[in-house]
Amino acid sequence: DFMYALENDVKPAFGAAAEMLDNFLQRGIINWGAPVSHILEDGALYTEQVRTSETSSLISILLEGPPNSGKSALAAKIAKLSDFPFTKVCSPDDMVAFTESAKCLQMRKIFDDAYRSTLSCIVVDNIERLLDYGPIGPRYSNITLQALLVLLKKQPPKGRKLLVICTSSRRQVLEDMEVLSAFTSVLHVPNLSTPEQLLSVLEDSDVFTKQELHSISKRIKDYKVFVGIKKLLDLIDMARYTEPSHRVIKLLTKMEEEGCLEPKH
Amino acid sequence: DFMYALENDVKPAFGAAAEMLDNFLQRGIINWGAPVSHILEDGALYTEQVRTSETSSLISILLEGPPNSGKSALAAKIAKLSDFPFTKVCSPDDMVAFTESAKCLQMRKIFDDAYRSTLSCIVVDNIERLLDYGPIGPRYSNITLQALLVLLKKQPPKGRKLLVICTSSRRQVLEDMEVLSAFTSVLHVPNLSTPEQLLSVLEDSDVFTKQELHSISKRIKDYKVFVGIKKLLDLIDMARYTEPSHRVIKLLTKMEEEGCLEPKH
Amino acid sequence: DFMYALENDVKPAFGAAAEMLDNFLQRGIINWGAPVSHILEDGALYTEQVRTSETSSLISILLEGPPNSGKSALAAKIAKLSDFPFTKVCSPDDMVAFTESAKCLQMRKIFDDAYRSTLSCIVVDNIERLLDYGPIGPRYSNITLQALLVLLKKQPPKGRKLLVICTSSRRQVLEDMEVLSAFTSVLHVPNLSTPEQLLSVLEDSDVFTKQELHSISKRIKDYKVFVGIKKLLDLIDMARYTEPSHRVIKLLTKMEEEGCLEPKH
Amino acid sequence: DFMYALENDVKPAFGAAAEMLDNFLQRGIINWGAPVSHILEDGALYTEQVRTSETSSLISILLEGPPNSGKSALAAKIAKLSDFPFTKVCSPDDMVAFTESAKCLQMRKIFDDAYRSTLSCIVVDNIERLLDYGPIGPRYSNITLQALLVLLKKQPPKGRKLLVICTSSRRQVLEDMEVLSAFTSVLHVPNLSTPEQLLSVLEDSDVFTKQELHSISKRIKDYKVFVGIKKLLDLIDMARYTEPSHRVIKLLTKMEEEGCLEPKH
Amino acid sequence: DFMYALENDVKPAFGAAAEMLDNFLQRGIINWGAPVSHILEDGALYTEQVRTSETSSLISILLEGPPNSGKSALAAKIAKLSDFPFTKVCSPDDMVAFTESAKCLQMRKIFDDAYRSTLSCIVVDNIERLLDYGPIGPRYSNITLQALLVLLKKQPPKGRKLLVICTSSRRQVLEDMEVLSAFTSVLHVPNLSTPEQLLSVLEDSDVFTKQELHSISKRIKDYKVFVGIKKLLDLIDMARYTEPSHRVIKLLTKMEEEGCLEPKH
Amino acid sequence: DFMYALENDVKPAFGAAAEMLDNFLQRGIINWGAPVSHILEDGALYTEQVRTSETSSLISILLEGPPNSGKSALAAKIAKLSDFPFTKVCSPDDMVAFTESAKCLQMRKIFDDAYRSTLSCIVVDNIERLLDYGPIGPRYSNITLQALLVLLKKQPPKGRKLLVICTSSRRQVLEDMEVLSAFTSVLHVPNLSTPEQLLSVLEDSDVFTKQELHSISKRIKDYKVFVGIKKLLDLIDMARYTEPSHRVIKLLTKMEEEGCLEPKH
Ligand SMILES: Nc1ncnc2c1ncn2[C@@H]1O[C@H](COP(=O)(O)OP(=O)(O)OP(=O)(O)O)[C@@H](O)[C@H]1O
Ligand SMILES: Nc1ncnc2c1ncn2[C@@H]1O[C@H](COP(=O)(O)OP(=O)(O)OP(=O)(O)O)[C@@H](O)[C@H]1O
Ligand SMILES: Nc1ncnc2c1ncn2[C@@H]1O[C@H](COP(=O)(O)OP(=O)(O)OP(=O)(O)O)[C@@H](O)[C@H]1O
Ligand SMILES: Nc1ncnc2c1ncn2[C@@H]1O[C@H](COP(=O)(O)OP(=O)(O)OP(=O)(O)O)[C@@H](O)[C@H]1O
Ligand SMILES: Nc1ncnc2c1ncn2[C@@H]1O[C@H](COP(=O)(O)OP(=O)(O)OP(=O)(O)O)[C@@H](O)[C@H]1O
Ligand SMILES: Nc1ncnc2c1ncn2[C@@H]1O[C@H](COP(=O)(O)OP(=O)(O)OP(=O)(O)O)[C@@H](O)[C@H]1O
Ligand SMILES: [Mg+2]
Ligand SMILES: [Mg+2]
Ligand SMILES: [Mg+2]
Ligand SMILES: [Mg+2]
Ligand SMILES: [Mg+2]
Ligand SMILES: [Mg+2]
Repeated sequence: DFMYALENDVKPAFGAAAEMLDNFLQRGIINWGAPVSHILEDGALYTEQVRTSETSSLISILLEGPPNSGKSALAAKIAKLSDFPFTKVCSPDDMVAFTESAKCLQMRKIFDDAYRSTLSCIVVDNIERLLDYGPIGPRYSNITLQALLVLLKKQPPKGRKLLVICTSSRRQVLEDMEVLSAFTSVLHVPNLSTPEQLLSVLEDSDVFTKQELHSISKRIKDYKVFVGIKKLLDLIDMARYTEPSHRVIKLLTKMEEEGCLEPKH
Repeated sequence: DFMYALENDVKPAFGAAAEMLDNFLQRGIINWGAPVSHILEDGALYTEQVRTSETSSLISILLEGPPNSGKSALAAKIAKLSDFPFTKVCSPDDMVAFTESAKCLQMRKIFDDAYRSTLSCIVVDNIERLLDYGPIGPRYSNITLQALLVLLKKQPPKGRKLLVICTSSRRQVLEDMEVLSAFTSVLHVPNLSTPEQLLSVLEDSDVFTKQELHSISKRIKDYKVFVGIKKLLDLIDMARYTEPSHRVIKLLTKMEEEGCLEPKH
Repeated sequence: DFMYALENDVKPAFGAAAEMLDNFLQRGIINWGAPVSHILEDGALYTEQVRTSETSSLISILLEGPPNSGKSALAAKIAKLSDFPFTKVCSPDDMVAFTESAKCLQMRKIFDDAYRSTLSCIVVDNIERLLDYGPIGPRYSNITLQALLVLLKKQPPKGRKLLVICTSSRRQVLEDMEVLSAFTSVLHVPNLSTPEQLLSVLEDSDVFTKQELHSISKRIKDYKVFVGIKKLLDLIDMARYTEPSHRVIKLLTKMEEEGCLEPKH
Repeated sequence: DFMYALENDVKPAFGAAAEMLDNFLQRGIINWGAPVSHILEDGALYTEQVRTSETSSLISILLEGPPNSGKSALAAKIAKLSDFPFTKVCSPDDMVAFTESAKCLQMRKIFDDAYRSTLSCIVVDNIERLLDYGPIGPRYSNITLQALLVLLKKQPPKGRKLLVICTSSRRQVLEDMEVLSAFTSVLHVPNLSTPEQLLSVLEDSDVFTKQELHSISKRIKDYKVFVGIKKLLDLIDMARYTEPSHRVIKLLTKMEEEGCLEPKH
Repeated sequence: DFMYALENDVKPAFGAAAEMLDNFLQRGIINWGAPVSHILEDGALYTEQVRTSETSSLISILLEGPPNSGKSALAAKIAKLSDFPFTKVCSPDDMVAFTESAKCLQMRKIFDDAYRSTLSCIVVDNIERLLDYGPIGPRYSNITLQALLVLLKKQPPKGRKLLVICTSSRRQVLEDMEVLSAFTSVLHVPNLSTPEQLLSVLEDSDVFTKQELHSISKRIKDYKVFVGIKKLLDLIDMARYTEPSHRVIKLLTKMEEEGCLEPKH
Repeated sequence: DFMYALENDVKPAFGAAAEMLDNFLQRGIINWGAPVSHILEDGALYTEQVRTSETSSLISILLEGPPNSGKSALAAKIAKLSDFPFTKVCSPDDMVAFTESAKCLQMRKIFDDAYRSTLSCIVVDNIERLLDYGPIGPRYSNITLQALLVLLKKQPPKGRKLLVICTSSRRQVLEDMEVLSAFTSVLHVPNLSTPEQLLSVLEDSDVFTKQELHSISKRIKDYKVFVGIKKLLDLIDMARYTEPSHRVIKLLTKMEEEGCLEPKH
């Protein structure tokens, strides 16, 4: 009955993949630099290969990068652009308090459903959480790991094709678990790392005046930038609700405090 | 039926968040110095950001500090001041003898309920106990850790906003478990650390005469102070029931014994 | 049904706290020296504080000392003298073969019952056994540890007051488990350690003649004494059933054999 | 009911061994060099021995080699060529999310069914997954290991004969688990390792023109080759969907990137 | 129903303590030297103390010594000689395949039954097996250990008296588990260690002629003897079924082979 | 119902011990040298001692040796020759996929059945598998180990006699688990180790002509031989199906490959 209650609670969510993808994309995709375009292009290529190839019926890719770098949003974008008839999201967000075996069964169900469609795309978000990875020990759910290792390599039945897009911020852990080699391809999602990239997002935000942007540009030109797009959007949001006169200084101070900006020496 | 019995026993408590917040605030909030004001101000800021922002639908903060420093009371105060339509406390006090999976489900339920309200505040008290952290081993409930890691980052459904306030006296443990980086912000709740701060609480208590306060002030001026507000209030209470003539000496002796007062060299 | 059977078997015992306290006090309390008086006085003080204070609604003390030093008897004595309307004993003796979760639930039940009375006293005997501490590993019941850690700090509901008296012969283990800091106060229960203390118990026993006591006194004056009151009473009892002519020699030999008496160099 | 549901879902698959073997052979067997012929010949020899011998009623062989080297396809080929009346595949693909005991029971069932036929062949694919081998720990299912160790040596009932063909890419792990010595014979399935072998597969593919093949041949003659047949076929497939003018360069670049081609010094 | 079946199977055995004691004594007690008399005397003393003392209501002794030294037989002998109205044997022999919790419950039941009689004796045989001690790990049943630790110190209800006699061949393990200090007294049961002790058993056996005994005596006078009484009686038994002419030589050879006899240098 | 299904499936096997013994003896016992005769003689001696002795009601022997050395066949032979009214085989072959507790119960049942007959013989085959020994960890079933340790020393009821014959190829593991000392006697089953022993088996096989045997004899006279009888019979079988002209060379090559034959320097 626990499982029953949870499933009934959750079902609507699972039924509405489009909604879940949109949830990942709440703040859109800002094209802040080359890495963004490259990932989207590669995503399109693999999508095309799955769609047209007669022999590659399964392609699985991993988007890995630091926390807040935009992995989930990019995975959702690729999935959405594929416009495959069957799309599902397999996310730990929907499995809070599930036992490891319930998680496994859920994962299996999603894949089994996909095998019934001719052209499917599954987004498996945040693998380390799906695997219940706890760094002290370390601990992880071995049965979920095994399920993942099999599902990432299992050929769909004849005539069915499947694209799997996973995300993770723990590349090393996946390497240690020997999951990494199960992917067709691994794509790195970086943080923003240059003042130019940072400025392009600030411009996009419509929060700062031309002058303010100019002033920021001058101040940060000798700084190292290292910030994830999600974090950055949060900081801009905070600035938005700050009094105009303090806006710039508040943003830059906070960014330094959180280690997103560092003088070059 | 175990779960049934427990839930029925406990339900009234869960139903009455206001009462639980008051329980944490039994002895009020004495403004003994700058750290107290700062924490309350920051709390108000985050509360405001959740209330007004259109894009930040989730903010999670951690109040961390030594045992007895007043973390739970301050968390309750911030929650109370937010005056959000939905407020809940998630505390190990209400889950004694729960299995780890029952704890998880309880946590999940509280968050699921919050997602149904447009504006919610959840106080998650004493995280290390919620995670069943035992220092020998060490041991902890990995499934509860995973639930927490997900819930601290999971976006509420569209149009819903959530403020999560956690408390813990084991910052290092949370760091090792990689929970720390899941918070929007981490605020430190310190012990009282100067004679002035100590005196301001003694004055507030109405236990000592002006003269007594003066005498205390003179005696401790070359002492290092390190005491949590909860401990201090307990010691003052003990003094209250001591014969007037011994009151001062008893308080100071006991404070030295317990390591709350130390000569500067 | 296992739980059912056990509970029914056990219930009478749980119902009769007075009887259980008396069981711990079968051989009374002999005032063999200053440590005994001090512990009883401190106990009385804390009892009084709980009874009269308006703000301290929870006081928890630990009696710790070597095996056989009289911890359980002293805890029972303090509880009995408190004469609080609700008194309960939480002892591993009543939980043989309980699963760890049954132990937890039992503990929780005792505290829940106490919260219903305005003035309660709970004796938690032999914590290391309650926690299923096994030195090889080491092993312990983490869920019971968590329950204890919470219960020792959880405020009773408004208007209710609670005194908790625990006993343990494994101070270091409790320190390692971070239980020690959860107590309001920790009192040490020592073994008898001087010839005078030893003689005062022998006199009290009515087993030896004046002359015999004198002879013992002379023989042991250059000896180090280290014996728990429980062990000592057992040895006296053995002497009681020994032929009068051998009594003294038998007692002293046995004490040396068991390491309770040692020549000073 | 979990088991029930899974079994009903899965049964058709288990009923159709021929289909499963074909699934492993989707892209046929290309005879790219001596190792391929040798393995198929040895397979035929063992098949013949099981069929005709009066005293060897059980032969078990292991095909081990690097990931993607073609182990599963070769195992399927040998099984298919045996044309034994009873053929079954025991594969982790069909046991996703099974508990370890469910896996064991499934394995047992497959062998029990085989014992009922006079001449049987069982393909046990991907042993490390069947054993739930997780490299962090390491972890594995001991009960499945025990079942495998017994089944690989258990004589079929009188008059019944059995050929078991296993595959694995973790020879060392099997050695450590002492499974290796349970096989009648262990055959190594290598990666392609010479330019000639590589070219023979490229020719077979009909993707490249004579000229292109010639150009490739010249470019790679001083390169070390190390690529599994499965990987190679995937790369050729990718080339197939590349614009003709870029085909060769794309193939070779990608092969270098993935470490399949390396200059000799 | 498993427990049910086992209990019904086993019940007759549990009902007939006398029979079980006799089982331990099948070959009687041969008084082969001082250690035997001393143990029996000490046993009688403790028995008497339990019977007559008004204050010692619980005495627990441990017979520990090498395998085959006769521990179980001596424990049974002391229990039988006590002639207490209630006598029970708690032995791993009756708990084969019991879960650890079933073992615990069985132990608890035996003690609970004893508490109902005014004067009881319980033999707890082979403690290391009862605790499921496995040297690799090491492993043991912590819940059984906890039950034992409590039961060995738990006072019987007022007016009831209890003598507990335990046996073990793993003194060091019990020391490590901190069980040793729970006993009132620990008695060592040694192997036979002198030619004289050995000869006294051979004489008692009626297998050898005077002359043979004389010849053995001469041969072994410069040998070190180290053999348990149980082993020795087995070897004598083997000699009994050997042809008379080889008897002596066979016995001595076998004893040397098994390490029971060793030349002094 | 799992247990039920398994038991019903298995029962016929358990009912037919004679058949199981014959299964172990499919290729008979070839007397290839002194070790074979010695083991059979010792087996006969112990059988006789159990049958006739009045005091030895339990004898347990272990046949230990390298894999394929013929342990199970020799155990079966001794059991068959005993011709005891009750004979049973306890083998991991019949317990594939059993839980550890099911294994234990099965073992217990077999012994309980034996205790009901006056004269019984139990063959416990392949102890390391029965104990679920996995070398990584290492892991083993402690509850099965405990059951075995007890059953190997538990006296049958009065008037019943029992011979237990165990086999194992992991002597060191059993030593580490302290099982070894529980046996009355441990007999070593060696591999063939001289050219003469090897030739005697080849002759017995009727596969080779006199001349071929002569040629083999000459070739291997300076070789070290180390091969188990089971392996050797398999190799001879392979030779049987080889073309006559290659037979000798094939046998010798294969033996060298598998490490069964090695030049002396
Ligand atoms: N170029 C971009 N790439 C990715 N996300 C972007 C981009 N531009 C804007 N965004 C927005 O940034 C946010 C990225 O958050 P997202 O959850 O995808 O990060 P993440 O790397 O998955 O974080 P986490 O490590 O917590 O899983 C989303 O709200 C998304 O709409
Ligand atoms: N400035 C203050 N800050 C916090 N608490 C205060 C303050 N002034 C008075 N108090 C009172 O002090 C007590 C603080 O106890 P609280 O339980 O919050 O401490 P804590 O740090 O959570 O302790 P623990 O480490 O045991 O969880 C409360 O009773 C509260 O009413
Ligand atoms: N001054 C005293 N203090 C404590 N116990 C006393 C004293 N005088 C006499 N006694 C008697 O001594 C015995 C003390 O035993 P108790 O069980 O309390 O010791 P303990 O330290 O709890 O032992 P353990 O370490 O086994 O738990 C009781 O029977 C008690 O009646
Ligand atoms: N000579 C060959 N040997 C094996 N497979 C071949 C050969 N020629 C073509 N193939 C094709 O190559 C693919 C080999 O894939 P297969 O799954 O057998 O590899 P694998 O080694 O089992 O991989 P994994 O390590 O992932 O289990 C199959 O599609 C098969 O049809
Ligand atoms: N003096 C003696 N002491 C003990 N046992 C004796 C003595 N004389 C003869 N026996 C016989 O020797 C045997 C001793 O076996 P027992 O099972 O008691 O040894 P144990 O030390 O308990 O062995 P284990 O270490 O296997 O538990 C019994 O059959 C007993 O009748
Ligand atoms: N002298 C012999 N001793 C034992 N077995 C023999 C002998 N001669 C012929 N055999 C045959 O050799 C085979 C021995 O196999 P068996 O299973 O007994 O070996 P094992 O040592 O138990 O192997 P494993 O280590 O796999 O358990 C049997 O088929 C048996 O009939
Ligand atoms: Mg993400
Ligand atoms: Mg707190
Ligand atoms: Mg005590
Ligand atoms: Mg494969
Ligand atoms: Mg014994
Ligand atoms: Mg065998």
